Amino acid sequence: MHSWVDGQPADSVPLKDRGLAYGDGLFETIAVKAGQPVLLDRHLQRLAEGCRRLALVADHALVRSEVLAYATALGDGVLKLILTRGDSLRGYGINPGAPVRRILQGSPPAAYSQAHGADGIRLFPCVTRLSEQPLLAGLKHLNRLEQVIARAEWQDAEHAEGLMLDMSGRVIEGVFSNLFLVRNGVLLTADLNRCGVAGVMRAEILAQAQALGTPVVVADISLEQLQSADEVFVCNSVYGIWPVRDCAAMSWPVGPLTRKLQGIVRTLLDI
Amino acid sequence: MHSWVDGQPADSVPLKDRGLAYGDGLFETIAVKAGQPVLLDRHLQRLAEGCRRLALVADHALVRSEVLAYATALGDGVLKLILTRGDSLRGYGINPGAPVRRILQGSPPAAYSQAHGADGIRLFPCVTRLSEQPLLAGLKHLNRLEQVIARAEWQDAEHAEGLMLDMSGRVIEGVFSNLFLVRNGVLLTADLNRCGVAGVMRAEILAQAQALGTPVVVADISLEQLQSADEVFVCNSVYGIWPVRDCAAMSWPVGPLTRKLQGIVRTLLDI
Repeated sequence: MHSWVDGQPADSVPLKDRGLAYGDGLFETIAVKAGQPVLLDRHLQRLAEGCRRLALVADHALVRSEVLAYATALGDGVLKLILTRGDSLRGYGINPGAPVRRILQGSPPAAYSQAHGADGIRLFPCVTRLSEQPLLAGLKHLNRLEQVIARAEWQDAEHAEGLMLDMSGRVIEGVFSNLFLVRNGVLLTADLNRCGVAGVMRAEILAQAQALGTPVVVADISLEQLQSADEVFVCNSVYGIWPVRDCAAMSWPVGPLTRKLQGIVRTLLDI
Repeated sequence: MHSWVDGQPADSVPLKDRGLAYGDGLFETIAVKAGQPVLLDRHLQRLAEGCRRLALVADHALVRSEVLAYATALGDGVLKLILTRGDSLRGYGINPGAPVRRILQGSPPAAYSQAHGADGIRLFPCVTRLSEQPLLAGLKHLNRLEQVIARAEWQDAEHAEGLMLDMSGRVIEGVFSNLFLVRNGVLLTADLNRCGVAGVMRAEILAQAQALGTPVVVADISLEQLQSADEVFVCNSVYGIWPVRDCAAMSWPVGPLTRKLQGIVRTLLDI
């Protein structure tokens, strides 16, 4: 399907766009089922929070209406929304109040193997560490070279995702997923105040687990805690939940809380 | 002057460009005087090193010939060269061996006040810290949100540049400049193995100082060392050298080594 830029069909952006020049912008990757953007409120909430923190000025009602219209036209697939700080002359200085550029791109449904969800996956132990920057932590911004470098660490099809630690050795997330552990009946995911992307599916799973009465903890996670976990899974807003079977010398069974949450998320994503 | 993309006049890039999607690329900002790109060898050397470290596949002879042709057409001004990892479908995964996209943009000579070089400048003490990522340190890559945030910390015209520390409090650089100290006759600049951009003018100044017989040290710099410096200056490849008069409660005289190096750099830049 044709992309839109500021509401008009387009397939390019000006060379002066600050998204290109500096990665000065944010994005959301949204699953679309039967014309409906899945978890739209959570996506737009994260986007609005990102705009606030980066002082990006967007018309959020307009963004919502464009996403809804684009999703209707797309039908089934994946919608990528990018907001950039528009055009700029030379230099990092910003023009306060200048409106963002809105970019919408559509692609067919993601073609991941069904086995990832059914049987669980192997995580590649990435050497690339996440740098710690509280001012950007949690945001889905356009500065993603760390993920590009980490994803290039493995080419084999055996590993469906990679595990990323921060510079201090804490367990943070996957390259394109968030990570959860189950330990003694408690659901645990990493604190993302120093680095990482606060995923929309991560937020949904935290809420769903609390609704189930499952104790939930967001905290720093050590490799030792990961190793001794009862269950491990990764998630994102496109594929839902993949159980994790192993990572390097560590291995875990596919457990009951993972399966229960996977069932809930499958209903949401209609997969 | 019209921009070029892959050697052809163009003013846009495809929405699928990985420079836009992930900041997956590198850039150089090159002063052009009478049709000649200043310090071209150093710029292309840093670019080649960046390509090697990010596994970007460029035809460096072609890049050089395009820069030379563009500079001839530009005459006097500033040439910005961007290399991106070309187009991509969804996902961080790269297509090894895919050629980069080459973007050349020209702008008029930078319009900085002559007083910055003549009288020296004030540095704004930025609160934004540089995160530590050895895999990206030194490179002039397209992930520049930290600089965007730091540059937005001040709007007044009194401060011509900002001072940036790393997460551990070391003195690193300016927002768009490198920083030098003179202490007891020794020229000192920050080690950029954890963060920072290894500027082309920084490399030239280190070489010129050594040629003058001035002892040169590249090492970690503390705020205490900065405070007690005899001279402080910032540099980049467009404006050359600006003496630094003060930063918050710290102040320095404009000293003799600064003036000597400034003279050498002025000759290079023909300003």
